Amino acid sequence: MTTGKNQIGFRQSAKGAATYHTINPKTNANNPTKFYEATQAEIDSACAKAATAFYPYSKTTGAQRAKFLRAIASEIEEIGEPLIQMYTTESALPEGRANGERGRTLGQLRMFADLVENDKWRHPTKTGEKNGLRKALIPIGPVAVFGASNFPLAFSTAGGDTASALASGCPVIVKSHPMHSGTGEMIATAITKAAQSCNIPDGVFSNLNSSGIEVGEQLVQHPAIKAVGFTGSHKGGRALYNLAAKRDSPIPVFAEMGSINPIIITQKAIQERGDELAEIYAGSITMGAGQFCTNPGLILTVQNEKTAPFIQNLADKTAALDAQCMLGPNIAKTYTKTAQKMQSQGGLTIVAATKGVVGDNVAQAQVASVSGKHFLENKALHQEVFGPFSLVVQAKDQQELLKIVHDLEGQLTATIIAQDDELNELQEITVALQEKVGRIIFNGVPTGVAVEDAMTHGGPYPASTDSRFTAVGNHSILRWVRPFSFQDFPEALLPEYLK
Amino acid sequence: MTTGKNQIGFRQSAKGAATYHTINPKTNANNPTKFYEATQAEIDSACAKAATAFYPYSKTTGAQRAKFLRAIASEIEEIGEPLIQMYTTESALPEGRANGERGRTLGQLRMFADLVENDKWRHPTKTGEKNGLRKALIPIGPVAVFGASNFPLAFSTAGGDTASALASGCPVIVKSHPMHSGTGEMIATAITKAAQSCNIPDGVFSNLNSSGIEVGEQLVQHPAIKAVGFTGSHKGGRALYNLAAKRDSPIPVFAEMGSINPIIITQKAIQERGDELAEIYAGSITMGAGQFCTNPGLILTVQNEKTAPFIQNLADKTAALDAQCMLGPNIAKTYTKTAQKMQSQGGLTIVAATKGVVGDNVAQAQVASVSGKHFLENKALHQEVFGPFSLVVQAKDQQELLKIVHDLEGQLTATIIAQDDELNELQEITVALQEKVGRIIFNGVPTGVAVEDAMTHGGPYPASTDSRFTAVGNHSILRWVRPFSFQDFPEALLPEYLK
Repeated sequence: MTTGKNQIGFRQSAKGAATYHTINPKTNANNPTKFYEATQAEIDSACAKAATAFYPYSKTTGAQRAKFLRAIASEIEEIGEPLIQMYTTESALPEGRANGERGRTLGQLRMFADLVENDKWRHPTKTGEKNGLRKALIPIGPVAVFGASNFPLAFSTAGGDTASALASGCPVIVKSHPMHSGTGEMIATAITKAAQSCNIPDGVFSNLNSSGIEVGEQLVQHPAIKAVGFTGSHKGGRALYNLAAKRDSPIPVFAEMGSINPIIITQKAIQERGDELAEIYAGSITMGAGQFCTNPGLILTVQNEKTAPFIQNLADKTAALDAQCMLGPNIAKTYTKTAQKMQSQGGLTIVAATKGVVGDNVAQAQVASVSGKHFLENKALHQEVFGPFSLVVQAKDQQELLKIVHDLEGQLTATIIAQDDELNELQEITVALQEKVGRIIFNGVPTGVAVEDAMTHGGPYPASTDSRFTAVGNHSILRWVRPFSFQDFPEALLPEYLK
Repeated sequence: MTTGKNQIGFRQSAKGAATYHTINPKTNANNPTKFYEATQAEIDSACAKAATAFYPYSKTTGAQRAKFLRAIASEIEEIGEPLIQMYTTESALPEGRANGERGRTLGQLRMFADLVENDKWRHPTKTGEKNGLRKALIPIGPVAVFGASNFPLAFSTAGGDTASALASGCPVIVKSHPMHSGTGEMIATAITKAAQSCNIPDGVFSNLNSSGIEVGEQLVQHPAIKAVGFTGSHKGGRALYNLAAKRDSPIPVFAEMGSINPIIITQKAIQERGDELAEIYAGSITMGAGQFCTNPGLILTVQNEKTAPFIQNLADKTAALDAQCMLGPNIAKTYTKTAQKMQSQGGLTIVAATKGVVGDNVAQAQVASVSGKHFLENKALHQEVFGPFSLVVQAKDQQELLKIVHDLEGQLTATIIAQDDELNELQEITVALQEKVGRIIFNGVPTGVAVEDAMTHGGPYPASTDSRFTAVGNHSILRWVRPFSFQDFPEALLPEYLK
């Protein structure tokens, strides 16, 4: 069902000599399809088509774009089981997760369809006498989208970035993720079919294959590209941000780059429901083999006699869960390497780790412990270990815990676990955390990012490159639009949404 | 009435050895006050104070901040005539302009006070069952503001950037403009008095003097600074943008960097009201000695037998107006130099220029003409000449005119001058212009930027560094805020505006 070709507007293309395969992480074997790396000419062609398509696409009505987005969702549903099979084969994620993520992806496409079906999302504003000034949000131009390794559907080819950009009236060029280019091609084909059936201009969507970083780098530097959406590592996101900032004409980059998502657990919560919390957090740490940007990588608590038994309980429960295969050999290797680097830091103890781990790319879940003093003194302990790893920091007192919070880098989320009668004492920590994160959770887990208007998925650097936007929910469309004003314009020349 | 000292929170400071004076542009003589360049220690102190003040200031109620903003306006009014005298002495701008700009400044401060008096501006959003998710906009952190040479009040110390940032809950450190540091100090003193009388934390506002670029560079690179507002040259804005992007933790820079503001005039408009248009545009070109970022620097028309007489008429009317003194010797020198560089470009003719120009820093207004072909072939002709200079481009036909529009860089504004019975033929040029600018005007002049909600003052690069925001009007507050979500939070821990 896949050809390995690049999708350049309505045309498939495979002009390059370089090819690659995706890998089945469970067997380390290549999957059958040979993917053709996009050439410079193919990148240029996709960009030129997107630039040409921008004008007619930006002028489509909201109803036309809503129809297009719903058609994409239907075409994806239409693929059926083969998509789920491709997804699980390329990612090693289980079928239940594949189905859930497909549902989320379809939901997002239809949510943005609902949003743009009328023009309220443009915030049309009128001030001044007579004709005076009229303002509305308009699309910024062609957007480059980088798929995420850990969400082959919901944060990739037809994920939130693509759905929100297409909804706003921006063409999209996706740089397909090399770990799931087969899933990507299936989705790209669905988008193309939907575009053709809805009379959407050729070039509004393209999908480029690449196993390396060069295609993405070319894309971000191309004059036709006006904004970038990225979900992935700090290294990758920062590299794209730097390239975009160095352009003759710099463009905005929204990169969501992960986080260690601190969890603050009070002594009282440990005392009154330590066992329940250990169970819940063992599940959150290992969910999806820990491969979530909101994975709880850091647990902070003030030490007393109950702390050590709680950590042991959490670690044992985590280690006892079934070990899972990671998304691919590179991710598994990086996990092992960064976890080992953590282990080598002074003062750190591995409290428990999964025993008897067998199989290719299967991750050993680990819970480690360190003192507040060590954590404050060593920035290496603040780094993200992408996978089922969590570090518990035992502060000597509340003051040291606050100092640790003030010392953290920007994060996507923070969580406070406390008893209801402790609320008065939590004011200070709540506001301290607010300066560091985009979302704060009470008595829950950070994993799970609801697609809702009141969601913020983003946060101060390095959680994202621009904390002024969310990557999830209707408001994520604001990343791809700009205000535009008409002054004293005759009705006949105004767009419908400003009449 | 001025001391020349830096304002570091509530304290005045003059620790540096380096000093400078502002200049009276009409006489080229130094004004009496000796201004002390801010030292590295003073910059650090202002930043540390701002960082400390951020937490308590971000938690003030909207009513408290509204009171503060209104108190600033009252304190500025309180200064009275000496402010107008200082303004005119430092800028050579006339008293009428000084009064008008003061009115605009007071109006902006009171507009933002009205905006934040209740919390609707935070867009509080609630989704999900029970407590679920609640989201609102919160301030981003301390903001560095760079005053503009050409608006000593409305785009400087207590101008739109400062007013919107203070309204949102962000502390502000102003890098005072070296051409009007006396005006800056008077305003800084008014802000400080207002802060003290309103119990606003020490460090919410500081004002640093500097005649060079180093203080600004240090400020933009300081870890405590979380965003930057700038109005000025492309060179200056881009330099700050580059520094901010290279930080370990990059920050957003909103730089408004000027524009040549293309005016499209139809043949029919020239035929039917050429004389009237020549009069209006002579006024717009020379308004404020051409020192507006929305000055009409480029006039585009399709050549016919009426074109040459119209250009001659426009040039003669422009040259006949009283020559005006520019903002300072450096600006006057740069104007002469960039206008001369224009004159040396092949195919360009100076149609008329002010005769018998005398006096220090007095600008010779000039209207030049060039063919569409020359303009398309030579990017040097696309550059801004900051001052009373306008270039008329005669395209050979409508197609060449459209090509020119597609070839333009990003602009703040564009203007279409046409007859009412031509509307049907203007659709294509309107949408072509839309891709290039932030605001489009019909049958008016681009000079004059109304402080209204429906105003967009910004545009695609290089008009600004981020076209997704406006620098004027209530919505300019969006530059300094970020969304923040509370998940499943008890009422007692929520801020008032989310209860």
